[in-house]
Amino acid sequence: MQPDLLHWGRQVLKQQAFSELLGTELDVFEAGQAQLSLVLAPKLLQQNGFVHGGVLAYLADNALTYAGGSVLGPVVLTSEFKINYLRPARDCDKLVAVATVVGNGKSQAVCRCDVFMETRGERKLCAAAQGTIRKAD
Amino acid sequence: MQPDLLHWGRQVLKQQAFSELLGTELDVFEAGQAQLSLVLAPKLLQQNGFVHGGVLAYLADNALTYAGGSVLGPVVLTSEFKINYLRPARDCDKLVAVATVVGNGKSQAVCRCDVFMETRGERKLCAAAQGTIRKAD
Amino acid sequence: MQPDLLHWGRQVLKQQAFSELLGTELDVFEAGQAQLSLVLAPKLLQQNGFVHGGVLAYLADNALTYAGGSVLGPVVLTSEFKINYLRPARDCDKLVAVATVVGNGKSQAVCRCDVFMETRGERKLCAAAQGTIRKAD
Amino acid sequence: MQPDLLHWGRQVLKQQAFSELLGTELDVFEAGQAQLSLVLAPKLLQQNGFVHGGVLAYLADNALTYAGGSVLGPVVLTSEFKINYLRPARDCDKLVAVATVVGNGKSQAVCRCDVFMETRGERKLCAAAQGTIRKAD
Repeated sequence: MQPDLLHWGRQVLKQQAFSELLGTELDVFEAGQAQLSLVLAPKLLQQNGFVHGGVLAYLADNALTYAGGSVLGPVVLTSEFKINYLRPARDCDKLVAVATVVGNGKSQAVCRCDVFMETRGERKLCAAAQGTIRKAD
Repeated sequence: MQPDLLHWGRQVLKQQAFSELLGTELDVFEAGQAQLSLVLAPKLLQQNGFVHGGVLAYLADNALTYAGGSVLGPVVLTSEFKINYLRPARDCDKLVAVATVVGNGKSQAVCRCDVFMETRGERKLCAAAQGTIRKAD
Repeated sequence: MQPDLLHWGRQVLKQQAFSELLGTELDVFEAGQAQLSLVLAPKLLQQNGFVHGGVLAYLADNALTYAGGSVLGPVVLTSEFKINYLRPARDCDKLVAVATVVGNGKSQAVCRCDVFMETRGERKLCAAAQGTIRKAD
Repeated sequence: MQPDLLHWGRQVLKQQAFSELLGTELDVFEAGQAQLSLVLAPKLLQQNGFVHGGVLAYLADNALTYAGGSVLGPVVLTSEFKINYLRPARDCDKLVAVATVVGNGKSQAVCRCDVFMETRGERKLCAAAQGTIRKAD
């Protein structure tokens, strides 16, 4: 892992007021991959006590963008992504989003992301995402 | 508009801690469609002063689910959705997500959602989404 | 409708060996929209007598690309798209794919497409798609 | 690999008139995964000599459905999928689509698929897909 890249990525995350509001942390950030995590908290839930789907979508979006940025450079935008929810997320310590670059050219990267529930180090997949990150013009 | 459906939808929204955290409101909720809105606030932004993409994704996810629930009944899940970002969202009064049912059977509904920036009543499209809502088993 | 644009679009379609193999026709091609159609034939089916999902995906992909090309210029690529199948397609005269541009910048267009079964002029929606078309570099 | 599953899968493929038209073959079919391949032929191309995007979408759709069917049973439908095109497909011996199940319940499976160009046994990724397969009601 490149410590400078991780350090810089964490500084950017701190400048995302929305990520600060939720409590997101950047665990891994290196060429071709990124990992974000988010400790479970009552503020993240919906009416049935599950993590709101929008939280999983946010986390996937952000992890995909970090992964894309790791190969495209610092100024990137998310063009689009899709997410499939596999099971409701609940009763876990934290959510962990692991994103990797599947392929990229100079201006675009296609990335995938798996979002897990993690409890005492054990992970269970709860969502799978795929999307396009591109350099800002 | 069915006042009871809207009333009930607003009660559900209040039970979503995450939607309360963000400040989401349900404007329209009737058979086949739903509209959510979210007043712009600093907590919703990312590092460049734009609304975080995850906020738009959350809003689309939630509006799609309301639209699906309007034809499938109260206990629904989002199976999946995709979102395309058209332009960064910023400098507006609020975000407005308008979702409609494109087609549905007994157990599933396919819905589309447009997310707008709204300023003094004028709307500009900033994201387009499409997804599947299904009855919980 | 611009007759020259339509004429040119039909010439391009004839140069698509795969579209010729299937029998696709370009009905409408003007700024911001395109319509393709495909007469039902046994060669398009899968094992249950329905139109193969891949045929609907092909038709949506092609209509999205024409729609994007109508605003971006002749040399475009499909970056990505998603498709939701609403009902099996069968027992109809032809398939009709109607694509429109939802929003575009200089280099990219986000488009939506509805794929219908058409019988004696009546249309029933069988698939809904959304995707990104971009100028080739 | 279960020979009976593969044998049965190949029989189904032969009953897909559209797959026969294109020349698709089923290479692998076992619990949780499937591989389809398609020898390059002029009939599969578009106007620039690349494989038509619709062919890649068809191949991904079909591979995703086989993968889903391997865990859900023989009577399945594709609910939806998305595909990202990474590079134009051309100048290769064949296309190979490798699909795996990412997660599944009783009635639905979420699957991913990579579509490669293969030349003398070497593979290059040209498209990445993700979608939902479900049991037919």
